[in-house]
This record gives sequence, structure tokens and C-alpha cells, in this order.
Amino acid sequence: MMTRKEIAINKLKSLGETIIEDVSQNKVPAVRVPSRGTSNIVYDENRRHYVLGDRYGQRSLGNVKQIKKIGQMVYMANFCKQLVEREKTATLRELYYVSEGWEVEFGTQDESNIVGEDLEVTLGMTREDLGLMPEEDGASVYGDLTIKEDDLEINALRSGKSGYTISPTINEVEFVDHNVQRVIAVETMGMFHRMVQESAYKKFDTLIVGLKGQAARATRRFLKRVNDELGLPVYICNDGDPWGFHIAQVIISGSAKLAHVNHDLATPDAKFLGVTASDIIKYDLPTDPLKDIDVLRLKELLKDPRYRYETWKMEIKKMLKIGKKAEQQSFSKYGLEYVVDTYFPEKLEQME
Amino acid sequence: MMTRKEIAINKLKSLGETIIEDVSQNKVPAVRVPSRGTSNIVYDENRRHYVLGDRYGQRSLGNVKQIKKIGQMVYMANFCKQLVEREKTATLRELYYVSEGWEVEFGTQDESNIVGEDLEVTLGMTREDLGLMPEEDGASVYGDLTIKEDDLEINALRSGKSGYTISPTINEVEFVDHNVQRVIAVETMGMFHRMVQESAYKKFDTLIVGLKGQAARATRRFLKRVNDELGLPVYICNDGDPWGFHIAQVIISGSAKLAHVNHDLATPDAKFLGVTASDIIKYDLPTDPLKDIDVLRLKELLKDPRYRYETWKMEIKKMLKIGKKAEQQSFSKYGLEYVVDTYFPEKLEQME
Repeated sequence: MMTRKEIAINKLKSLGETIIEDVSQNKVPAVRVPSRGTSNIVYDENRRHYVLGDRYGQRSLGNVKQIKKIGQMVYMANFCKQLVEREKTATLRELYYVSEGWEVEFGTQDESNIVGEDLEVTLGMTREDLGLMPEEDGASVYGDLTIKEDDLEINALRSGKSGYTISPTINEVEFVDHNVQRVIAVETMGMFHRMVQESAYKKFDTLIVGLKGQAARATRRFLKRVNDELGLPVYICNDGDPWGFHIAQVIISGSAKLAHVNHDLATPDAKFLGVTASDIIKYDLPTDPLKDIDVLRLKELLKDPRYRYETWKMEIKKMLKIGKKAEQQSFSKYGLEYVVDTYFPEKLEQME
Repeated sequence: MMTRKEIAINKLKSLGETIIEDVSQNKVPAVRVPSRGTSNIVYDENRRHYVLGDRYGQRSLGNVKQIKKIGQMVYMANFCKQLVEREKTATLRELYYVSEGWEVEFGTQDESNIVGEDLEVTLGMTREDLGLMPEEDGASVYGDLTIKEDDLEINALRSGKSGYTISPTINEVEFVDHNVQRVIAVETMGMFHRMVQESAYKKFDTLIVGLKGQAARATRRFLKRVNDELGLPVYICNDGDPWGFHIAQVIISGSAKLAHVNHDLATPDAKFLGVTASDIIKYDLPTDPLKDIDVLRLKELLKDPRYRYETWKMEIKKMLKIGKKAEQQSFSKYGLEYVVDTYFPEKLEQME
């Protein structure tokens, strides 16, 4: 089996070879770039995440307007090939500055980011596979999982109270060993530290993942990998509001914007554990009233194919009805330990 | 010598004892709270950071308006005492929800945050010493430093590519061993990963600290401790713009808002390594023009006592003159390795 590195190099090479072949056959070189316009983003019922449809655009050197775009793409592909071969990575920001030395220039970083996406979508690989990294690290992980980065083995129970940080290069990490039954991802680092402090990792034989709000790509990739490769069920516990719902949903069903790489990022079997509108009622949580923007967002979610399951619809409608939202830390009303001693055990029993 | 924990418990107890003593002597109980109004925040030339002046406010139970504030403060102090005794921590958010069960209520979290600051300033300790933690973790650290959290030894060279994460409980961490000559803190995680990848920790015998923008309190405490306790010089490399300057300056001289705890957070001997206006010129870096808000901010800095040294004034004036700013990642114009192979060695030689 080819490694992801070999696949990346092959795909990058073949992009160039296609162009050379066209030239040697006296054809006008062109590159087929899958369209990522809204009309080509479809929710795939079988895969349970957004994918790209089969519409393509043609970038041709015969079209004056497209010559620069192709030039930029080829330069970038060449740079990525060097990165992958040398086992290096660069941030999108670094790439933008590196391109100052190229014969095709980018006006702004937005322009180079878009060409980066073109490359992702054309090759069907994440830009991380091509050596292009986001600035930010992923989530924090705490619990008995041993991973390997190059020659270094790291146990996420022995990395400190803030856990092991998922790096953008998570694809190259090897899972060596683990002694957990499940994964619980939580939205805030406040809740992460609570769970570490209350020994939730022991009580529930679980990995604890601190998402830090909207999950980074590296975090989504990590959750998918532990689910796929280690067969661990993934539960997500966020604030009980439309934003918390959607942070979970993007982990589960992917985002429309990244339809072309959701096959690497979405974890359709991950489950939203809470905080639900039902939890708000059952546990009589301290709440805030829904703001107009919350109501608007909840109504949008009702129309979103990712929320088509009855349980989601019911919870969204219930939240609209009670007109209230609650944060995951609001369980502390009953004492700091309550969320780990009472809420999680009750919810996990319901779900497993 | 008393541990910080013992000091915290003593101070919390004596707050209550003062009140009880007043009552038993038939006096109206009152608490002296140092004023943190702007007129009481002064730059201390000897300590080289902001401190609070000697103005106090009196919170008296004889004043109807102040009864609730004192009640909240005593409840919070009691909660903190329990936290410290039980070796637990809580986020400010959790504290706010816990207070729902108290007989004195907080209208909003802003209100409970302010009482938390009152407690800090009255006792002269950081709220972290009192068990109250911020939500967010601190910086990432990479390099040959071994620390001890409870019984667990962790080496920051063996915590993964994203390094060891400074947790809000950094005060309880013990420095066990190290094999470095200095500390280089950088503003972005992009630069952090670049330095890890180019083995900067070996080349410069350095710890690498990824600040992630404005340094968290835990990060500032960490930098102060490695400077004080291990005698390591601290260098800060940020973007070459007023915001990068100020991220460095807050590490060096503390912030006005935290004048009451700067003695625990400021590292007056830390040095700003770059990116300076002189660097922009010398290295012919890719730049962006200063925006109006940048110019405004630079002019503010010129009036700030923390920037009174000639080198700072000269660099600020030079930046205003060239009208340009540059990001730290812009060195990639000369290739990804340039910043580590050329820029850092040249700057460190100048400064050491």
C-alpha cells in the first residue's frame, strides 16, 4: 500500500505530466478543476457528509484569463512536491511570502489560499497532505493513548494537565496503543480541565478532547482516525445553543466549504451527547434567553440536510419553544463535580 | 518557607478573621481594597513595571451600597479557600454558576469577575493562586526542559511537535532540569513550527515558546519563572507592527490593568529581538503599509512610559517614517530556512 506521502507525490507529479503530455501532443494544455460552487456541493446520504458533485471547470492555457491561474497552480504544486519530498511543511502565510520569489505573483494571500484550495480539490487530497499547514494547532487530548511522531512515543496521559496537542501534521502520527473505550470531546478548555481534575478519563475509560470551540481540521482528522482505526465511539459535549450544535455537526457531517475533503475529516458515527434542550429542562440548568441571532440560526439548522434526523429536529424545535440556551459549564450550579459524577454517566448510559 | 498554597489559605483566612474581629469588638466591619483606578496605577522605575499606588477604598458594612459587595467577596473567598484546600481549581465561568447556590447573587459574570479582581488586589495574589483559572491554556513550549506536575515528569522535547502546553496551573509546576541557554518566544504558531522543523532548539540551545498572540497570564508567569529561577535570558520575536511591539512589552513591563499582579507576571529583563523597523529595512522584507490605526497606536506607544528607552523610541519613529510594517513570517521570501539560518543568528549575536 502506498503511503499518503507517496500518493501526494504521485498526484503532484501527474498534474505536471498531464500538462507536458498535452504540450508534446501539440494540444493546448488544460487542467480539470472540480467545481466547488454551491450547486456542486451535495449532501451524500450514503456517506452521510457533504461531497462535491461531478461538475468540473476547465482551466486552459488557451484562455488568456486563465493562464496566470494555471501558472500559479503549477508553481504551487512544484513547491508542495519539494515540501513533501523533503518532509517539510509550510504555513499558507509562508507560502504566500515564498511566492514573492516566483515568476507568477499573488496579489494577496486570499489569492494564494484560493489556488491552494484549487490544488486540494483537483488532487482530492487535503492541503496538509501536500505539506501546507494551517497556523493553528488542533485540540488537546488527555487519556491513555500512545502515539508515535517520527521515532518519539508519546502517551497522552503523561503530557501534562493540558494534555497532548494535536499538531497540524496529525496524518503522520501513528497510533501505537491505547487503553480506552471511548472518546468524549468537549467544546471548552474549562470543561476539559474539569474532566481531567475529576478523573473522568478513569471513570469512563475515555480520551478527553478539548475542542477549543470550532474544531480545527487537525482535530476533525484525529477524531475520524480514532473512530475509524481504533473503533472508538466518539461523543461530543458542547454548549446547548445553535453554535454548540453546529460545532458538533461539522465534526459529524463535515462542512459544505470543505466538501472536497470531508471524506478525510467527517466522522458520521460521532454522536452529539449534549447539552440538548431536553437536558436544559431535565437538569433545570441556568440559562440565557435565546437572542434573535440564535433563533435565526436554529431555524436555518432546521432546513440543513445534516439535521434531518428526528432527534435533531425535535431538540431544535424544543429549544425554539423554551426560548433558552445553556452553557456546558452551567452544571456547576450543582457543584463542580456534578457534571462528571451525574450528567455524563446518565447520558452515556442513555446513548450506549 | 511557606508554599504559595499556604500563603493563599492564610490570606483568605485573615480576610474573614478581620471581619470577625471587627464584629467581636463591636466595630462596623470593613475591608480595605486597594484602588485600581487609573490614577492609582503607576509605572515603577525601579521594578520596571506598572504597580498599584497606595490609595485604598474602604468597603464597609455600615454603607448600605457596599453590603452586597462585601457579602459576595466573603462568599467567594470562602469558595476559594475550599478550592485551595482540596487542591482543585475552577474557571471564572464555573464560579459564576456555582454562585447560583449562594445567598448573595451575581447579576452577570462581569460582576463576579470584578469581585474576583477585588479579591486579587486585596490579597495581593493572582486569582490562579486562589484556584480561579482562566479558560484558556498558555503557550506551547518546545526544548530540553524537564518539569514536574504532581508526580509526573515531562520533558518539553518529548511532548510532540506542538510541544508542552503551559497550563493555567503553571505556578504548581516544578522545574526539574534543563539543558538550554536561552528562551526565544515567538508570536505565531507558524513561526513556532518553523523553528521546531529547522531544529532551532538545537542550533541556539533554546527553548521555543509559541505565544499564540497576546500572551496568556500563564505564559507570562512561565517566562518570568524561567528568567528568575533558571536565570535564562528571554528574547521575544513578534510581527513588526505596533501590536507585535506591545505583545512583547506586556511580557516585559506588564499591563496597567494587572498592575496589582505584575510582580508575578512581568519579566523586565526580557528583550525584544524583532521584527524591528530597522530589520524591515536591513532585510528588505515584504511589507504592508501602516494603516491609520497602526499610526495612531504607534503614536500612543511613544507616550507610554514602558517605551521610554531610546531604542524603542527610535524604532517606533523609524516605523512611522517608513510607513510600513512586516510580519515575522515574511522572512520566507528568502526561503523557509532563512529566518533560522540567518536572521536569528545575526540578531542573537547583536544582542548577547
